[in-house]
Amino acid sequence: MTMQQADTATEVKTFISSENLLNEWIGHRRLTRRVIEAFPEDQLFTFQIGGMRTFGAMVKELLDIGATGVKGMVTNDWGTTDFNNHHMTDEQKTKEYLLQQWDLSTEAIIHWFPQISEERFQETVKSFGQYEGHVYSSLLYFIDNEIHHRAQGFVYLRSLGVEPPAFWNRN
Amino acid sequence: MTMQQADTATEVKTFISSENLLNEWIGHRRLTRRVIEAFPEDQLFTFQIGGMRTFGAMVKELLDIGATGVKGMVTNDWGTTDFNNHHMTDEQKTKEYLLQQWDLSTEAIIHWFPQISEERFQETVKSFGQYEGHVYSSLLYFIDNEIHHRAQGFVYLRSLGVEPPAFWNRN
Repeated sequence: MTMQQADTATEVKTFISSENLLNEWIGHRRLTRRVIEAFPEDQLFTFQIGGMRTFGAMVKELLDIGATGVKGMVTNDWGTTDFNNHHMTDEQKTKEYLLQQWDLSTEAIIHWFPQISEERFQETVKSFGQYEGHVYSSLLYFIDNEIHHRAQGFVYLRSLGVEPPAFWNRN
Repeated sequence: MTMQQADTATEVKTFISSENLLNEWIGHRRLTRRVIEAFPEDQLFTFQIGGMRTFGAMVKELLDIGATGVKGMVTNDWGTTDFNNHHMTDEQKTKEYLLQQWDLSTEAIIHWFPQISEERFQETVKSFGQYEGHVYSSLLYFIDNEIHHRAQGFVYLRSLGVEPPAFWNRN
């Protein structure tokens, strides 16, 4: 390895800006919203495979993480989410409620995310008072977790005979 | 909004460096490898839900994308992958083959990824000669696609009565 290559290897290169990362996430949220919309209402809180949670319960977890998590990165206020119990009342167990909360969460993410400073992304944080990691890594984890549970929703839909929305379409 | 806030809002902030993003991906690849390992050998190329592909076939798609995709970002050589036919011979349809190819792909990703320049991440590219987007977005898509199919593997495992590896563990 020449010295020039060694220099290049240790140079810090930006992979993505916070603005573009937020846009990627918003694209994911549009797709996840379509998966919620596509789910048969009468199966949303009843259908499951292999002892897993219902898709409605998974979406509730995503709702408990997304906006609250981003706000926490800015304010260090993590709300009162109980991760052992993503509770919903019987009245809340509807597609309409999930979609309404989904849209409110997306708005809140768009409000809070740009308030995270460049330095903050590199800091170590205890998300929700318990999960330690870099801010950038924790935010990616929130997105990974959304992709993960949405993909499980894809299998549930296929199993119910419903064609899921196109994975590649984020518009 | 004060002028100062307006300035802050338009400032370009780094979300993550290429080195840290690569480390995140390598963490994902460790987890995906454990899902392949956990899959019962006799179900890898036979078990499916709702008319979907087998998990082995999904892993073959991931193998066709990852290393070849990253190398393509550097060289513009996209290999000869046929995305309409992620072909495997009968002899290749084993867990051992998938794990061996997985490790070779990870090594190749670690080799090629650091050779992508900061400017290149912002360029528009036609991945595999057909999927147009920014380089950063296309690379994130490769990772999203891995998370997506791995999560479907989680459902297959649960359906087969096998507990999947912990989602949060990337070590």
